[in-house]
Amino acid sequence: MKKRIPKIPHNAKRVFEGVIFDVYQWPQKMFDGTTEIFEVLKRPDTVQIITTTTDKKILILSEEQPTKHRYYSLPGGRHDQDETLISAARRELKEETGYTTSDWTFWYKESPTSKLAWEVYTYIARNATRIAKQKLDSGEKILVKKFTFDQFINLANNSSFRDPSLKTILTRALYNSKERAKLKKLLFG
Amino acid sequence: MKKRIPKIPHNAKRVFEGVIFDVYQWPQKMFDGTTEIFEVLKRPDTVQIITTTTDKKILILSEEQPTKHRYYSLPGGRHDQDETLISAARRELKEETGYTTSDWTFWYKESPTSKLAWEVYTYIARNATRIAKQKLDSGEKILVKKFTFDQFINLANNSSFRDPSLKTILTRALYNSKERAKLKKLLFG
Repeated sequence: MKKRIPKIPHNAKRVFEGVIFDVYQWPQKMFDGTTEIFEVLKRPDTVQIITTTTDKKILILSEEQPTKHRYYSLPGGRHDQDETLISAARRELKEETGYTTSDWTFWYKESPTSKLAWEVYTYIARNATRIAKQKLDSGEKILVKKFTFDQFINLANNSSFRDPSLKTILTRALYNSKERAKLKKLLFG
Repeated sequence: MKKRIPKIPHNAKRVFEGVIFDVYQWPQKMFDGTTEIFEVLKRPDTVQIITTTTDKKILILSEEQPTKHRYYSLPGGRHDQDETLISAARRELKEETGYTTSDWTFWYKESPTSKLAWEVYTYIARNATRIAKQKLDSGEKILVKKFTFDQFINLANNSSFRDPSLKTILTRALYNSKERAKLKKLLFG
């Protein structure tokens, strides 16, 4: 395993501080010995949760935002500075769906795009039950849907669901019975 | 089909101009009537090319950059202001591989991440032949590899290849013989 190269090197300077995004720049030595200014963005990391319920369904949000038409998504949101990642996952799940559970598994993290220092942490929350009402932000309109496992993996072909990496996993499960059984076991335990 | 909501509305102001990224902000009315500052980034659109050769191979780059370990990618790059998209695709293919062809098809475009106004245009270039040497930037080290169709679709499971949307398409082809035949026909004509 090669050593990971950090997206923002130590000598980078923050040249802009925004509402969500900060911009960093640094002088980068090129292969021919010349130097160029490189630029990378930083935004807060986020968490998202695949939640299975005691009646063997999966929670999917049908979400609307002031600048977006309705789309399907997983519960999740920003990881605040003053909380752990798992706390962020618990908080977002409860706020957006009213559900909670004690059965949490961290599944994978990914950095969706280059030139952007941003990690998305995907958790699995099993055997969740509804204990509260939704508590939404002023920029959220969220319907909580219960999908069967088959409906869930069919999101692979649904253009209203935008999560390319998860779609690759769902596509594998959709077309290959071994992968399907493996995913089902992982999500429902 | 619902009307597409532009990522950057007319009343947005550019609050930062960077080397690659510009930052835009605007006051956004929320669902409860309050207003918040919304922020979106803009970067130049890019093109990428799936190139098939006269000997029925597919051109894949093994690329190194000053801040990235070697990885697999498609030929491609930035769409400059003073050229058309197809010109950018022709130029990048020739610069990065030395190959050219007259058989071009636009395949799909996508916007890889929300909060970022950035479109990637994917082209298919068939029956390409090598007519020149590579002409690389100071920040590029590129080996041009010829993949068979089977090697190409196996990139679906290769962590050194980072293109989540294309990986979903390749996964479909890898696991489903109809999808595989369809993709092969599309790429080789």
